[in-house]
Amino acid sequence: MRIIGVDPGTAITGYGIIELQGNRLTVVAYDCITTQAGMPMPSRLQHLYRQLELVLKLYQPQQFAVEELFFNKNTRTALAVGQARGVTLLAAVNAGLEVAEYTPLEVKQAVVGYGRAAKEQVQYMVRALLCLPEIPRPDDVADALAVAICHAHRLGRRKIMF
Amino acid sequence: MRIIGVDPGTAITGYGIIELQGNRLTVVAYDCITTQAGMPMPSRLQHLYRQLELVLKLYQPQQFAVEELFFNKNTRTALAVGQARGVTLLAAVNAGLEVAEYTPLEVKQAVVGYGRAAKEQVQYMVRALLCLPEIPRPDDVADALAVAICHAHRLGRRKIMF
Repeated sequence: MRIIGVDPGTAITGYGIIELQGNRLTVVAYDCITTQAGMPMPSRLQHLYRQLELVLKLYQPQQFAVEELFFNKNTRTALAVGQARGVTLLAAVNAGLEVAEYTPLEVKQAVVGYGRAAKEQVQYMVRALLCLPEIPRPDDVADALAVAICHAHRLGRRKIMF
Repeated sequence: MRIIGVDPGTAITGYGIIELQGNRLTVVAYDCITTQAGMPMPSRLQHLYRQLELVLKLYQPQQFAVEELFFNKNTRTALAVGQARGVTLLAAVNAGLEVAEYTPLEVKQAVVGYGRAAKEQVQYMVRALLCLPEIPRPDDVADALAVAICHAHRLGRRKIMF
């Protein structure tokens, strides 16, 4: 079972693709899609959509996972991230994928075993669980891999339960 | 010159298409795209994208106008509207259209001549300027026509200025 985790953003969208075989996790690819700050927003969204479309075609994941977002910051950020997120979800559904959403708490719980873990603990565990040589950068990539791991964890549990 | 104005939303996206000939405005079509509350968000965004794509193919507007959004409400709404807005902007750019953005103040100024006009005044003027039999419903459709009129006004002025 191949899973892509995505952390959408207008400037940087992180993604990570992992493979779940039995209860073994391996990493397939991870990177980020960036768009230039000077470009008009519609063009940035188009670039993001097209690049993500290519990633989905290239790696053919069967599952798509993304973090549910909550903002206590400003609404301007929420609107901007919302735009990138909308385009990301469209790419997923247009590729025939269902989208699984997890709260930050669920992601931390799955990756670290503790819902209030610090960012650094999550990144450390992402590196350890996927046997990576170092912590993936930027943070958006590590976050994307974390939500993919969370989804794998959920699928793995489901397999045991039924 | 054919202009489409769009007021994006997850549940209801209003659109209005008008024709500017010289300094005469006529209405071509106006309606809204709705999505069902029970559907998963990615499917709702897909439906919105596809319907808007059809509208753009059918009416072939040359200009695309949308309101710039500011929220003083909650970030949850901003994120949801952002997702619908992202998909809307993607449909515009994928149809080869540039996107013009106007603040609510600019729209009111253009339609009513007064930046702090009430919603009802804007709707009254939309009906009057386009010689419509009644005020378009729901509000999202009237808002979409208002931003289209605002853009027509801007284009008309530019023609005079240069």
